[in-house]
Amino acid sequence: MAQNIYDDPAFFAAYAKFRRSAIGLDGAPEWAALRALLPPMASLRVVDLGCGYGWFCRWAREAGAAAVLGLDVSQKMLERAQADTQDAAIRYQRADLDVLDLPEAAFDLAYSSLALHYVEDFDRLVGAVHRALAPGGRFVFSIEHPLFMAPSQPAWVTLGDGRKVWPLDSYHHEGARTTDWLVKGVVKYHRTLGATLNTLIRRGFSIRHVEEWSPTPDQIAAIPEISQELDRPIFLLVATERQA
Amino acid sequence: MAQNIYDDPAFFAAYAKFRRSAIGLDGAPEWAALRALLPPMASLRVVDLGCGYGWFCRWAREAGAAAVLGLDVSQKMLERAQADTQDAAIRYQRADLDVLDLPEAAFDLAYSSLALHYVEDFDRLVGAVHRALAPGGRFVFSIEHPLFMAPSQPAWVTLGDGRKVWPLDSYHHEGARTTDWLVKGVVKYHRTLGATLNTLIRRGFSIRHVEEWSPTPDQIAAIPEISQELDRPIFLLVATERQA
Repeated sequence: MAQNIYDDPAFFAAYAKFRRSAIGLDGAPEWAALRALLPPMASLRVVDLGCGYGWFCRWAREAGAAAVLGLDVSQKMLERAQADTQDAAIRYQRADLDVLDLPEAAFDLAYSSLALHYVEDFDRLVGAVHRALAPGGRFVFSIEHPLFMAPSQPAWVTLGDGRKVWPLDSYHHEGARTTDWLVKGVVKYHRTLGATLNTLIRRGFSIRHVEEWSPTPDQIAAIPEISQELDRPIFLLVATERQA
Repeated sequence: MAQNIYDDPAFFAAYAKFRRSAIGLDGAPEWAALRALLPPMASLRVVDLGCGYGWFCRWAREAGAAAVLGLDVSQKMLERAQADTQDAAIRYQRADLDVLDLPEAAFDLAYSSLALHYVEDFDRLVGAVHRALAPGGRFVFSIEHPLFMAPSQPAWVTLGDGRKVWPLDSYHHEGARTTDWLVKGVVKYHRTLGATLNTLIRRGFSIRHVEEWSPTPDQIAAIPEISQELDRPIFLLVATERQA
């Protein structure tokens, strides 16, 4: 069973205050870039891995998707998602991505926003997604960038000469990273960028786009501290297509 | 015209002392990993972009290639390559990768070892390689890893608490990096990993493998300081296939 921080009351309360929680997709700085990697949504059967409050599920339907299945490990998230949704073509279901099992060729798009770095066995998950997609189906996701996750101490350092740097080490030491984020002891799984892409390729996906997200000038003007993401990317966005 | 450091007498003399110069491919720690990305060589028409002393050209022929064209900007390198080669199926030719022009569909494999980070316009080069390959042809290369090139000051730093870290910054500031390596003022071009892959995809290559090279336990036992490459990869190896 995957760790389920989102049902921790302290975490849930803190998470609810994020812009991306409060105002939805447009509160996430990387959303526009992720949206640009999506196929035309009309008539698609969509599964959202880690749907949270269901913002993307509702957006997908508004954009023309035929049906959307939102999966999350957090019961609290799903309750909130259900309460905010009036649409019989959107279903929510509790699911642990570490043991995910989906019907075969049942979807045209698998989407995931910032959830897959909680998955320990990425290879298994990618296999499950591949089976669940129809040939030509897309798998589009964001995760925390490996550079953000890798360091033994992932916090900016100011050097004696004034440089503010990201103290990279441990890049090739893949596996669990335990950090304190809203609550103590959040477990994420670091994989190198190469390992992530090679797993997708080996499982039968072709890589369509690899976006190491960076803020736009407008975003930097609005939130100056976001400019640090130019120095060290925080999000990795990947678009793939299931080979026949 | 690209910078041609290899014809600088001081550079040439210093470069000649490297293991990879003195003993050839097996003197390069990443060679085994790069070789593993190559297709079966039998009967292939091969072009080597930045052939240096011609070690790979000769290896390719021994491995069964039908013909090999070695290209380099350095006249001294080509003279040495020619002097070390007795094989009419290997040709050497002076070429500037920044303005490379090759015959159409004339090759089955384009190979390059640690040369393409000197190329300013990668997009143009990839287009030239794509045209030069037959459909299904492979493009396999190594470059300095973007993480190695990105920092404003690419040198390890020891922090107050004893951590030895790679001071990452400037990752999204693509473009020229001037460093001192054997001689002063060597110009390389930093591109993000995503940009490199997306250029290949946009130009009609499918990504087959992305290897952020790391040393093997045997290599670390033999050369302990090479273990730092586990903390920050130095080489990026990419294998692609030309789409029909």
